[in-house]
Amino acid sequence: MKTTIAALAALATLGSAAAATAQDLPGPVKARQGQFRIMAINLGMLGDMAQGKTAYDADAAQKAADSLVGVSMIDEAPLFAEGTSEMDIDGTRAKAEIWDSWDDFASKWSGFGEAAANMQQVAATGQEALGPAMGQLGGACKACHDTYRAPE
Amino acid sequence: MKTTIAALAALATLGSAAAATAQDLPGPVKARQGQFRIMAINLGMLGDMAQGKTAYDADAAQKAADSLVGVSMIDEAPLFAEGTSEMDIDGTRAKAEIWDSWDDFASKWSGFGEAAANMQQVAATGQEALGPAMGQLGGACKACHDTYRAPE
Repeated sequence: MKTTIAALAALATLGSAAAATAQDLPGPVKARQGQFRIMAINLGMLGDMAQGKTAYDADAAQKAADSLVGVSMIDEAPLFAEGTSEMDIDGTRAKAEIWDSWDDFASKWSGFGEAAANMQQVAATGQEALGPAMGQLGGACKACHDTYRAPE
Repeated sequence: MKTTIAALAALATLGSAAAATAQDLPGPVKARQGQFRIMAINLGMLGDMAQGKTAYDADAAQKAADSLVGVSMIDEAPLFAEGTSEMDIDGTRAKAEIWDSWDDFASKWSGFGEAAANMQQVAATGQEALGPAMGQLGGACKACHDTYRAPE
């Protein structure tokens, strides 16, 4: 048991160190960038269905919505570790205001969670439900990006 | 509405394209690697508490466990996109067997979900509950890695 836990902890540490060496980005930054990519992939699938670019598939829409809800359950604090703003390091657009206004940032993350939960409720009910739910999700994304993400 | 959806879809596409250009890894690979990093970060926090390396904190343990459950809800299919095995591209250790044995791979992912759900139930009940729950999580990780992850 102890060996397993120690091995897992070592793996976690190694993972972070490897990232910093290999691509000059701290582990938490790689983690959060992956997280946003997961969101983009699932939002992209739902958006394509909402626009009729791909055929509506209730099961696929539900899986994408469930994935977004899953992402919304991830605690952002360890991913937005201190010292990982765009003022501290290259390769991130996370503004220092995130740490100055953590409660508001967390509230905006909760807003994404609410929008994802709404999508989860309606995703399998029909193609026409996707547009409004995507609008709410887009609004939640924008609310946070407008304040806390630096321009490219 | 349509503009928002189109913008989101464009962002998703841009995100994938940027990754492929910048670091030669397809978007889904970056996404899944970030996902595993999120798992490692949260497992690391729980493992440190289980071993007594850091003080037990019921709230922090619960947040880490909730985060693991959230990750377990992410659909793996779009992240393990066709053509992204270690035989196809550099920079991944995902064995081709994943796609040959998708149902078994998905079942092992569900095993992680069950272990995460167990941790979620017990994480806030006391430090002594973490060890056995970490053991189950470690077993779920190992079961999949032994079969589907190539050596470094």
